[in-house]
Amino acid sequence: MASVALLLGASLPAQAQFAKPEDSIRYRQSALFVMGQHFQRVGAMVNGRIPFDAKAAAENAEVVAAMAKLPWAGFGPGTDKGAPTKAKAEIWTEQAKFREAGEKAMAETAKLAAAAKTGNLDAIKAAFGATAGSCKACHDAYRAQ
Amino acid sequence: MASVALLLGASLPAQAQFAKPEDSIRYRQSALFVMGQHFQRVGAMVNGRIPFDAKAAAENAEVVAAMAKLPWAGFGPGTDKGAPTKAKAEIWTEQAKFREAGEKAMAETAKLAAAAKTGNLDAIKAAFGATAGSCKACHDAYRAQ
Repeated sequence: MASVALLLGASLPAQAQFAKPEDSIRYRQSALFVMGQHFQRVGAMVNGRIPFDAKAAAENAEVVAAMAKLPWAGFGPGTDKGAPTKAKAEIWTEQAKFREAGEKAMAETAKLAAAAKTGNLDAIKAAFGATAGSCKACHDAYRAQ
Repeated sequence: MASVALLLGASLPAQAQFAKPEDSIRYRQSALFVMGQHFQRVGAMVNGRIPFDAKAAAENAEVVAAMAKLPWAGFGPGTDKGAPTKAKAEIWTEQAKFREAGEKAMAETAKLAAAAKTGNLDAIKAAFGATAGSCKACHDAYRAQ
């Protein structure tokens, strides 16, 4: 799949990208946290907790889509431990399935960013729901509670 | 200054963007950590620790420039405490100067991304040095050791 290359985040081999496992772990947690914060801001508009602001929605969704490309490189071999992590062992034993989950996240967030760019709240709501579903499916399968 | 708007990261007021100070703190630390990891990868090529790979340099520099826009929204009022942080009080007592430091970081990283896009290692080296200088100046002034 062409999109597998995206999962590496850059052309360097994954194992060369981080000095030590704890850096990988902190990196993926950081990228996911930043993504989550911006995703929540879109969600607050989708759920009517704050007024809809098309410009803010588009900006936040764009950050979400950009951040969604990053965390996967932080799940390289040997990064199942080294710092506190909720990552389940299945990430490394079901690599193809985990990779698919990452690709799904990138695809859905790209659609969310595209929807947000249109400024159409209904389109944003639909894309937000699909994105949230991909977050949840991956968390259910690969993140410990 | 037009670029001040960029510092807010989005159109929402800074205080509305995070549920609590600890989220702001984790957000800015996360954004800076992700930025630092990608910046180090450019640095490894600039310093000859790994072979120069123009495509990887451009991809990493682009992430650096994108990440450089984010952390500043995490330094809102009341976020000087709430979680472990090395942020100095001067961030909030010298807000105009701190804002300038953030704008400098965004400007230098944008130049680095532009240089990396050309694939010219000498241009990347120069822009890398200028960017590193802006990181250091801000850390010296606003981050506790």
